[in-house]
Amino acid sequence: MNNLSIPTAAELSEAIRRIQPYVHKTPVLTSHLINEIAGAEIYFKCENFQKVGAFKFRGAINAVLQLSDEEKVNGVATHSSGNHAQALALAAKMNGVKAYIVMPTSAPKVKSAAVADYGAEIIWCEPNLESRETTLAEVVVRTGATIIHPYDNHNVICGQSTAVQELLGENKNLDIIITPVGGGGLLSGTALAVKYQYPHIKVIAAEPEGANDAYQSFNSGTLIPSVNPDTIADGLLTSLSERTFNIIKQNVEDIFTANDNEILAAMHLIWERMKIIIEPSSAVALAIILNNKAYFKDKKIGIIISGGNVDLKKFSF
Amino acid sequence: MNNLSIPTAAELSEAIRRIQPYVHKTPVLTSHLINEIAGAEIYFKCENFQKVGAFKFRGAINAVLQLSDEEKVNGVATHSSGNHAQALALAAKMNGVKAYIVMPTSAPKVKSAAVADYGAEIIWCEPNLESRETTLAEVVVRTGATIIHPYDNHNVICGQSTAVQELLGENKNLDIIITPVGGGGLLSGTALAVKYQYPHIKVIAAEPEGANDAYQSFNSGTLIPSVNPDTIADGLLTSLSERTFNIIKQNVEDIFTANDNEILAAMHLIWERMKIIIEPSSAVALAIILNNKAYFKDKKIGIIISGGNVDLKKFSF
Repeated sequence: MNNLSIPTAAELSEAIRRIQPYVHKTPVLTSHLINEIAGAEIYFKCENFQKVGAFKFRGAINAVLQLSDEEKVNGVATHSSGNHAQALALAAKMNGVKAYIVMPTSAPKVKSAAVADYGAEIIWCEPNLESRETTLAEVVVRTGATIIHPYDNHNVICGQSTAVQELLGENKNLDIIITPVGGGGLLSGTALAVKYQYPHIKVIAAEPEGANDAYQSFNSGTLIPSVNPDTIADGLLTSLSERTFNIIKQNVEDIFTANDNEILAAMHLIWERMKIIIEPSSAVALAIILNNKAYFKDKKIGIIISGGNVDLKKFSF
Repeated sequence: MNNLSIPTAAELSEAIRRIQPYVHKTPVLTSHLINEIAGAEIYFKCENFQKVGAFKFRGAINAVLQLSDEEKVNGVATHSSGNHAQALALAAKMNGVKAYIVMPTSAPKVKSAAVADYGAEIIWCEPNLESRETTLAEVVVRTGATIIHPYDNHNVICGQSTAVQELLGENKNLDIIITPVGGGGLLSGTALAVKYQYPHIKVIAAEPEGANDAYQSFNSGTLIPSVNPDTIADGLLTSLSERTFNIIKQNVEDIFTANDNEILAAMHLIWERMKIIIEPSSAVALAIILNNKAYFKDKKIGIIISGGNVDLKKFSF
């Protein structure tokens, strides 16, 4: 597959069949009060209840399940300090495949402990992109492992598309789907699935103002990476790749942004009213609805709640 | 009905049919990891997703729906600073009935605001039991309203029984049911429903050490009210009534306690692993399982998660 390979309708359908035995079919929740506040009808697809607490498991398991027998022997590798690390570690474990996860020494202990619990080998590196990539390259030379990138990967994108496929299987009459955008894997998979299956539904992306590379790229038509991104939505710090930008610019209706205060207010509303724990990255979608009420008025909107991994040590009674 | 009236099997069956159109059928969740830690198979009946965020709505709506036409004209009244206040206010509103809620001036603003949002009239009193009862008596003289006590009420107990009735409708093969115990309304309704419908299942109560009046009463055979209860589980500060103690001593297998550190650790585990927000009172059940692993080993256990109303201002990013 080259850099710009675009998953086909058949590949997305195969992905949902392939991963079904391995993933949770997550619930779709609604809140009467949030609908009243928003002036819209919102369906929350709750990937915070997915395995490892995030949609990332869908892409990781879809990629691992398509390894050849020879690739399985050599294992998989990635660099990540976040949800993809846990997702790949668990997906590998479930298939008897060795996983090598390059993590910066700055990664939270709770994340590295979870990765280790899944039986993956952690290789520590300096907390910068150059060290991460160099260390990963060394791991691949040493082990022959296959790199599974968190979003710049054809099979990962196919896997991420399965969340919206499940949602639209239950709720066909939506007008708009909103996903957050960081590296663009979830957004790319979502936009393609919607275009193939329900082309009348608009796909909108939600991005933090402090990491608005997708917004800038989409509006300029040129891929513009983030420089020093800074946002509470720590799952959305990454920049689009050429592959994801290519899919997004052709299949996404628009990208809206929200600032950190708006993101936190939306997150607080969901925690308080829905009694579910979501991470800040997952609140950007509701934040942009509340910022653009006229645009979303009376619409039936599906939101992919991307995950629920937050550091609860920050909560004190 | 006298003080010691005991709901019949028929009344519990009628209650679930009566309130079904008004309540959420809440989900039953499980956690592979928590099961591993506990060495048991636990089914969490999630009343934190119930209307007003707590099981209390079940009892309140069941009581309001059984008012006579004349009683409906005069309205309902109670004193409460907690979940019952919101539950009664909403139940009354849904039936076009006026609600008078006596609240201590010390009640959290967020709670009184919610009660006011449901259209109830708030009557402020001093933050002590004498003032609450005197003020409530004055309201009743003035308005002719019917008092709906949060737990010392036959119809409320019937309503609270519906949570376990739903749970056992879906999961019949449980060995043990655990509920928290404060005033004993939920525990009484639960114990009766289990005894009538599934008499082989044991009902266990979970109580904070700092408010262990039910534990003391159960083990001494004499009703012993709490004196200066002190616990993080703020929904469980109340003492049993003669009515609830009478039901509990005949129908409950045993009462276990947990201290505040154990309660908070169990709550943290549920928040972190299940991505749901529960209040401290709801975590006591898991805390007693973790305290008594031999007793609960390999058992199939249903837990009623009583509610999810916590002050999220305490969480700061």
